[in-house]
Amino acid sequence: MAGNTFGVLFRVTTFGESHGPSIGCVIDGCPAGLAIDEDFIQQEMARRRPGQSALVTRRREADRVHILSGVFEGRTTGAPIALLIPNEDQRPRDYEHLSDTFRPSHADYTYWAKYGGHRDHRGGGRSSARETAARVAAGAIAKLLLRQHGIEVQAYVSQVGHIALQTPYTALDLSRTETNDVRCPDPVLAEQMAQLIRQVRKAGDTVGGVVTCIVRGCPPGLGEPVFDKLHADLAKAMLSINAAKGFEYGSGFAGAAMPGSQHNDLFTAESGHIRTQTNYSGGIQGGISNGMDIYFRVAFKPVATLLRDQPSVNTAGEPVLVKGKGRHDPCVVPRAVPIVEAMAALVIADHWLRAQP
Amino acid sequence: MAGNTFGVLFRVTTFGESHGPSIGCVIDGCPAGLAIDEDFIQQEMARRRPGQSALVTRRREADRVHILSGVFEGRTTGAPIALLIPNEDQRPRDYEHLSDTFRPSHADYTYWAKYGGHRDHRGGGRSSARETAARVAAGAIAKLLLRQHGIEVQAYVSQVGHIALQTPYTALDLSRTETNDVRCPDPVLAEQMAQLIRQVRKAGDTVGGVVTCIVRGCPPGLGEPVFDKLHADLAKAMLSINAAKGFEYGSGFAGAAMPGSQHNDLFTAESGHIRTQTNYSGGIQGGISNGMDIYFRVAFKPVATLLRDQPSVNTAGEPVLVKGKGRHDPCVVPRAVPIVEAMAALVIADHWLRAQP
Amino acid sequence: MAGNTFGVLFRVTTFGESHGPSIGCVIDGCPAGLAIDEDFIQQEMARRRPGQSALVTRRREADRVHILSGVFEGRTTGAPIALLIPNEDQRPRDYEHLSDTFRPSHADYTYWAKYGGHRDHRGGGRSSARETAARVAAGAIAKLLLRQHGIEVQAYVSQVGHIALQTPYTALDLSRTETNDVRCPDPVLAEQMAQLIRQVRKAGDTVGGVVTCIVRGCPPGLGEPVFDKLHADLAKAMLSINAAKGFEYGSGFAGAAMPGSQHNDLFTAESGHIRTQTNYSGGIQGGISNGMDIYFRVAFKPVATLLRDQPSVNTAGEPVLVKGKGRHDPCVVPRAVPIVEAMAALVIADHWLRAQP
Amino acid sequence: MAGNTFGVLFRVTTFGESHGPSIGCVIDGCPAGLAIDEDFIQQEMARRRPGQSALVTRRREADRVHILSGVFEGRTTGAPIALLIPNEDQRPRDYEHLSDTFRPSHADYTYWAKYGGHRDHRGGGRSSARETAARVAAGAIAKLLLRQHGIEVQAYVSQVGHIALQTPYTALDLSRTETNDVRCPDPVLAEQMAQLIRQVRKAGDTVGGVVTCIVRGCPPGLGEPVFDKLHADLAKAMLSINAAKGFEYGSGFAGAAMPGSQHNDLFTAESGHIRTQTNYSGGIQGGISNGMDIYFRVAFKPVATLLRDQPSVNTAGEPVLVKGKGRHDPCVVPRAVPIVEAMAALVIADHWLRAQP
Repeated sequence: MAGNTFGVLFRVTTFGESHGPSIGCVIDGCPAGLAIDEDFIQQEMARRRPGQSALVTRRREADRVHILSGVFEGRTTGAPIALLIPNEDQRPRDYEHLSDTFRPSHADYTYWAKYGGHRDHRGGGRSSARETAARVAAGAIAKLLLRQHGIEVQAYVSQVGHIALQTPYTALDLSRTETNDVRCPDPVLAEQMAQLIRQVRKAGDTVGGVVTCIVRGCPPGLGEPVFDKLHADLAKAMLSINAAKGFEYGSGFAGAAMPGSQHNDLFTAESGHIRTQTNYSGGIQGGISNGMDIYFRVAFKPVATLLRDQPSVNTAGEPVLVKGKGRHDPCVVPRAVPIVEAMAALVIADHWLRAQP
Repeated sequence: MAGNTFGVLFRVTTFGESHGPSIGCVIDGCPAGLAIDEDFIQQEMARRRPGQSALVTRRREADRVHILSGVFEGRTTGAPIALLIPNEDQRPRDYEHLSDTFRPSHADYTYWAKYGGHRDHRGGGRSSARETAARVAAGAIAKLLLRQHGIEVQAYVSQVGHIALQTPYTALDLSRTETNDVRCPDPVLAEQMAQLIRQVRKAGDTVGGVVTCIVRGCPPGLGEPVFDKLHADLAKAMLSINAAKGFEYGSGFAGAAMPGSQHNDLFTAESGHIRTQTNYSGGIQGGISNGMDIYFRVAFKPVATLLRDQPSVNTAGEPVLVKGKGRHDPCVVPRAVPIVEAMAALVIADHWLRAQP
Repeated sequence: MAGNTFGVLFRVTTFGESHGPSIGCVIDGCPAGLAIDEDFIQQEMARRRPGQSALVTRRREADRVHILSGVFEGRTTGAPIALLIPNEDQRPRDYEHLSDTFRPSHADYTYWAKYGGHRDHRGGGRSSARETAARVAAGAIAKLLLRQHGIEVQAYVSQVGHIALQTPYTALDLSRTETNDVRCPDPVLAEQMAQLIRQVRKAGDTVGGVVTCIVRGCPPGLGEPVFDKLHADLAKAMLSINAAKGFEYGSGFAGAAMPGSQHNDLFTAESGHIRTQTNYSGGIQGGISNGMDIYFRVAFKPVATLLRDQPSVNTAGEPVLVKGKGRHDPCVVPRAVPIVEAMAALVIADHWLRAQP
Repeated sequence: MAGNTFGVLFRVTTFGESHGPSIGCVIDGCPAGLAIDEDFIQQEMARRRPGQSALVTRRREADRVHILSGVFEGRTTGAPIALLIPNEDQRPRDYEHLSDTFRPSHADYTYWAKYGGHRDHRGGGRSSARETAARVAAGAIAKLLLRQHGIEVQAYVSQVGHIALQTPYTALDLSRTETNDVRCPDPVLAEQMAQLIRQVRKAGDTVGGVVTCIVRGCPPGLGEPVFDKLHADLAKAMLSINAAKGFEYGSGFAGAAMPGSQHNDLFTAESGHIRTQTNYSGGIQGGISNGMDIYFRVAFKPVATLLRDQPSVNTAGEPVLVKGKGRHDPCVVPRAVPIVEAMAALVIADHWLRAQP
């Protein structure tokens, strides 16, 4: 239970360090007979890939996914699917000077404390967001499974720094999300966000943001009562992403200020289908999907690596200066969009299987 | 994996319906030798108990906890601890008229859809917040375990409706929390909140709120990398509480707007102990506790049961009117405080065990 | 993971000690809509009940099962099913003299060593076979689920001491099993076994035996490859029963001496149904059921409690004499028959759910 | 829960098919700081390797283990350890004629039935014993962990066909086990067994056998009460090995015929250490290790692949002839010895971690 596995019936175990030979994952529980579209997997990887635009880190990785098992003649067999992604642009030597240093707001100190000093310090080792590449690969397969059943997951950037998109998702044209480097469906705001990101990068600084995610086509009945509520598992999935600080679904924190008489979603029956007139519930009631759109928001903190020198301490407790250098993202949210989608797809796929029969 | 179990090594399974003979839980994994203070358990139950003040539901339950197993001569034996709480004030007949009706923003429809029409409709059955009594009982035992190791969990109400406490927890006297019915440590705001709750109750309406929680004394090293990050498990735990809509820890959603140069928590070493100067990280870095205070906030929606008639549909999809009657809370947050603490204690106890040795 | 839970999707957690107020279990994952026949549960309890015949322990327990949750109007709701069985004939004082003594071949020493001296010593506490009453109650519900799908589990005594039934199960009339106190379907051998049991009891001694179990009507496809093979889970289930020492299925240990040319089960197709001509595979191939009868055998050691004085040591390592007194079974296998069936039913029900859809 | 993961805290997930590009595993939960001796891993692989002697299959695999993650500067970091073993001598074309055929007593039919016809038929695909190479690699790491704590696991062949070693393990010189190709510590019997294997191979037939395994140095306290008894987990582990048909520990099936007065292991205290005079308990009492040697036996059926033509049916239910050709072992037990050890090491390592603190 060392925490590297996610899911109950659609179960993903990831492995690998930022500057080791490769990262990857094993998916156990994917039903047999699913057609595996390798191009689709690769497209998803490209959305998360470093070096994809001027707004992100310059590390160069092809992120080519090798399927080692579980797929035969283009279809899954029910056996575990092992996916391998070689690390091509690892630069372990860039981190030699950091082997004894705790970078501020990174996981260096906590890993050191937890594992008795045994840690791969190179670029964060296991704690690096490079691990999320394996999640995107696994999420792509989850998406293929969900697509078979008419379920689509789509995320976009709704905030960078103080620039926030106020329009509800229902009034947005989400097909525009991928038309800009920020992945914000509002082109005007997207450009402002891009400018802000360029600006903080120039200043050697970083900035946080928010990703909004929508799940469409989810049938009623997904999610388990009590502890494994659908939104509880979504919350865990989202908070498990590097740099995530908050999660809200449906009315979220704003719902706390609303009266019940306004917040309640009234039921209607439309030609046999039961729906709600409003959707403050965010598509989930009592932890179980009700057939309406599921939507939620995830807050991300600013990246901890700066292009500025920062004071810190080393393993001996002595003061040191952390040099501001290396490759990193000035803002994680553009690349977080496919990661949020992947984790959402993993949660929904898992609960889709759990809800059968 | 039907979702009624929480935790990995400190593992709680709850059972029971709102208007059945009793509710309860089984704790598996509590270490042997822990002294069980039954008075303490009962005090915790009293904090969550219905009928405790004029601000909450009038259902009357003594919530007496019976220990059926796992404790011998006042100490745990390592065997499963079964806790039984009889339902004394159940009124199944109050709900007869609702057997075919879906109350708005309740779990009636989703349970009906998920379980093929088989559901205990009485007062929400399994979906009722009555289930959380079992969590508080289990949480009390987790608290006893944590106390042994110097870890304390404390929560308070920080928002009711639009009335929000802006003072950070570090500037509050939390010992005042239990001195008022709202459980807000600021007496002036507490009174305003109480007034608002009385007002919405009078109007047959309800209102939401926010609970803030602090964990003190948590040593570095709790939490597992990647998926079972400490804050990810806290998020799941909190979102699994009835009516919860959002979770944030440390800087939370506000952190999204901050620059990294301000957000980074710089390390210092004080007589061998490594600490951070600020604590935007919320006591957790890379998913692992760093020894600083852990703090987080949980948003709750307004209660869905109103003292007003509401239009809805029944199982046949026909329009019906849901009568505004019955016993319920006008605002959940005063009673949510011990529930948030209980779930936090369960998460920390679980990760405390997982971090050994 | 303290080991008190069995199963993945049909999941049972038991609790309780031999001389505590009650024992019981929580079943999580039983599908909604299953009709619960309480008389049937009680009949199953009667088959395991102490005091049922002259061949077993004289402890008197009605073993009345109280359903606390998860059943509404006679059918399961999908919520956890809590079952409570009060201990009526507990006699804690009978064990006072044993609080510091390790009885030979009991779990007294190992529990003491494992739990740092904290243990309920009364009649073995948690390690007592009394715990299996909860398994039989849970197993009865599993049987009701399996019966719905045409699957039946039936066990019988095939050996007591050196008296062994050589006839294969296919040549036996299993309807005779319950016509004698030993639960052996061969009446002549049953009488010999009964005599042997009476004889060893008279001599203050005990004797072991073997139970054979058959699962009929199991469709092809149950069981998971690699680690969770159907027979591997059956082996674990059987070895988890008190006093069990061995498990074999199909050809078992005898198969080790057979040539492959004789052991292979040749396939035939009968009106579309694929069957095998022989069944040395025991109904399971590659860990997955093939539609033929599943059969296996479980060996039980002689009961460790004797009506004879035995030398031993106490917690201080000093020599002591364990007095030969108290209530116990001279041979466990007659009462083990319903326990073996219960555990088999739990395994098959679990894999039946895992094989869906 | 598709069954490809073993263990709770020391947790291994295997992947890969017999004729795919590679097989491997991910170990999650190995403590940080363990020195990884790659030579030792490779030696263990060599003991299971095909082509190692004239008694086994002629498939040629170097079985080189590549460590992809979790090890840094020769020591584990607490991160998941991914191990990759390329398949070098796969011959998918050898199996083309079998794509629609169910080989007798193989898993062809059950996989086909379970996975809706989607299966990798090449050499058994996922059901092939090639998967056990990944177990041996993982088991080698478990052995390194156990060795740190003074625990050693050693197995040997105790029966081939009807030739059975009657000497108890305590009277054998187990250092002789690896001096012959059969892995039987009695050189005279080893030669007889080797002759028998050569003879059945010549006859195009196969034969089964028994492996005995000893665990020395296991401290008291390993194993969990009730369901996860140490011997129950050993039984599951052993029965999960391809071709295993039975498991017994301590007195085993023979114990069923013994009187309790003979079977009970009397305690003695030797200079503070509590021991038993005999060890019919097999080192485990009440499911928990008592500090004595743990020993058990595992029965294996004869290999199902014969060098003889056998009648069978195909996926259409039509009669076909399965040609007797290909590479296979005439008897599995010589190569099963390291697999039994590996699975035992995984069980003990898992329970060693579960028993902490």
